[in-house]
Amino acid sequence: MAEGDRVVIVGSVALDSVETPLGRVEDALGGSAVYAGVAAHHYAPVSLVGVVGTDFPEAHLQMLAALEIDTEGVEVVEGETFRWRGRYDFDVNQAHTLATDLNVFEHFRPTLPNSHRDSEFVFLANIDPELQLSVLEQIDGAKLTFADTMNFWIENKREPLMEVLRQVDVIFINDAEARELCDTFSLIRAGNQLLELGPQVVVIKKGEHGALMFHPEQHFSVPSYPLPDVADPTGAGDSFAGGFIGSLAAEPRLDAAAFRRAAVRGSVVASFNVEDFSLNRLRALTAEDLRQRFREFRRFTYFD
Amino acid sequence: MAEGDRVVIVGSVALDSVETPLGRVEDALGGSAVYAGVAAHHYAPVSLVGVVGTDFPEAHLQMLAALEIDTEGVEVVEGETFRWRGRYDFDVNQAHTLATDLNVFEHFRPTLPNSHRDSEFVFLANIDPELQLSVLEQIDGAKLTFADTMNFWIENKREPLMEVLRQVDVIFINDAEARELCDTFSLIRAGNQLLELGPQVVVIKKGEHGALMFHPEQHFSVPSYPLPDVADPTGAGDSFAGGFIGSLAAEPRLDAAAFRRAAVRGSVVASFNVEDFSLNRLRALTAEDLRQRFREFRRFTYFD
Repeated sequence: MAEGDRVVIVGSVALDSVETPLGRVEDALGGSAVYAGVAAHHYAPVSLVGVVGTDFPEAHLQMLAALEIDTEGVEVVEGETFRWRGRYDFDVNQAHTLATDLNVFEHFRPTLPNSHRDSEFVFLANIDPELQLSVLEQIDGAKLTFADTMNFWIENKREPLMEVLRQVDVIFINDAEARELCDTFSLIRAGNQLLELGPQVVVIKKGEHGALMFHPEQHFSVPSYPLPDVADPTGAGDSFAGGFIGSLAAEPRLDAAAFRRAAVRGSVVASFNVEDFSLNRLRALTAEDLRQRFREFRRFTYFD
Repeated sequence: MAEGDRVVIVGSVALDSVETPLGRVEDALGGSAVYAGVAAHHYAPVSLVGVVGTDFPEAHLQMLAALEIDTEGVEVVEGETFRWRGRYDFDVNQAHTLATDLNVFEHFRPTLPNSHRDSEFVFLANIDPELQLSVLEQIDGAKLTFADTMNFWIENKREPLMEVLRQVDVIFINDAEARELCDTFSLIRAGNQLLELGPQVVVIKKGEHGALMFHPEQHFSVPSYPLPDVADPTGAGDSFAGGFIGSLAAEPRLDAAAFRRAAVRGSVVASFNVEDFSLNRLRALTAEDLRQRFREFRRFTYFD
C-alpha cells in the first residue's frame, strides 16, 4: 500500500454507459469517488464514502479491495446504483449526457465511519454542496480539505456552494464553471476571485489544455499530456483531483513546490485515465509508469 | 540594435480598426509583418518586405526607423493601404472580421532587395502561399525559413500551401487551422502529421492556452502568460512568431534548447502585445521587461 496519510473521498459510485469515437462500454464502473480514489491510491491509502444499490456487482468491490482501497464507508442500499449514460464526440472537453438515473444516490446522506473522522486529507467530490457541508461537520483536524463542484450546483445551490468555498482549503473547478461562477470570461480573474472567496488554493481544470493553479505564493500552469487519442474522457477531472490529493498526502511538507508536483501528478494520472474506458488503465498502473510520465512532463515543459 | 542574425519578414502592413470590450482604435498601425517585425527586433536586426499605399502615414515609417527596423523592402504604391476592421468580444481567441479592404495589398508581389537575398532567417508571414513560394525562390542559403498561414489558404490554395510545407523549416499554424488542414480534432495527431509533410518544426498556436511545439527530438508545451485582461488580441500570433524567430536569430546554436527558449520568448512578446492596442506596448518594451517576464514564465511552469 502507498505510504502517505489517509485520503477520505466522498462522492458518487456509478455504473456508466459511455460511447466515444473509439468505443463504448455498458454499466462500467465509474463515479467521481471511484475515479478519484483509484487515482489517489497510487500515492496514499484511500477510503471511499458513497452509496451503491443491491445490484452493484461484487466484482467491483473486490477490485477495489484488491487495490487496498477501503470501502467501509460505501453503503449498500436496497435499489439500483446511480447510472450515467453519455456520449463524447471528437471534442473530448464536451460530454453529452444522454441519461442520468440517480437511483439510490438521490437520497445519499454521507456518514463517515468513526475511523475516518480524524482523517488528514478529505475530498468532497462533486455532490450537492449541502452534503459537502454536512461532511465538513463530521471531520476534525484535517490537514487539508478539498472540494469539486459543477454547473448544476452553481445554478441551483449557490449559497451552500459559497459556504463550501469559505470552508475548504482547495477548490477544483473546470474552466466553464469558473467563468459561470465568477461571471467573467477571464480565467485569471476567475481564479483570483475564487481565492478571495475562501480557499487557499484554486485549481481550474481546462481539459485538453491542462490546468491552472492559483496559490497565494504562485500561479502555476500544467499542460495536459500530448496524447494523440483520448479513448474515454470520463473521470478525467476526478482522476486529476485524486492524483493531486494523493500526491500531497504523500509529501513530507505542504509547501508551494509540493502543490506544483501535485498539479503535475494530477495531470499524469488523468492522462493515463483517458487512455482507456472506465478504470481499465488507471487501476493497472505501476509506480514506474507514473514516475516515467512525470519525467516526461518535465521534459516537455522545461526550459532555461 | 539587437545583435542576432538579420531576420527578413515578408507580409502585410495594414491600418487596423479594432474594437474590443476594453476600447477601440481607428486606422492604427498593424499587419502581420509589422507585428512580427516589432516583436523580432527586440532580439535581432529586422528587415520588412511589404507594400503600403500613398496614404500610409509617414509617422509609422518614422516609428519603425526609430526602432532600427529596415523598411527598404516596403514598397509605396499609388492607392490605399490594406485596411482591416474587426471586433473581439470577451473570447479573445475569436476575431470577428467586419471589413477587409486589400487595396494595394491585392497586387503585392514581394520582391526582396538584393541586400536581403542571403539573409539567414526568413519569415513568410500569412500571405498567399504562391507568393510565399516566390519569396523562397529569391533567397539563398538561409539558416532557417518560417511560414505562417490561415484557413483561407487551406481552403483555396491547398496545393501551393503543401509545397510551402515541403520547403520551409518551421510552420506556425493555429489550432483550428491545424485541425482543418489535417482533418483531425487531435492537435497531437495534427502536429505529427504536419511534421511528416516537410517542416522540421511545427508550432501550433492555441491563443489563451499557449502553444505546442513539435520537433523531431521533443514535444514542448508553453502556456500563455496569465493576464487578467486582454486589451486587444490583434497580432498575438504574429508577435509570437516574431519573438520566436528573433530569439533563434540571437542564439549561437540552433539546438532543441534554443527552440524551447524561442517558444517561450514568442509567448513572452505575445503576452505584452495583447496588453494594449496596435503596437503601443510591443514597441516600448525594454530588454529588462522581456527578461523579467521570461523568468516569470519559468516560475509558473517549473517543478521538480
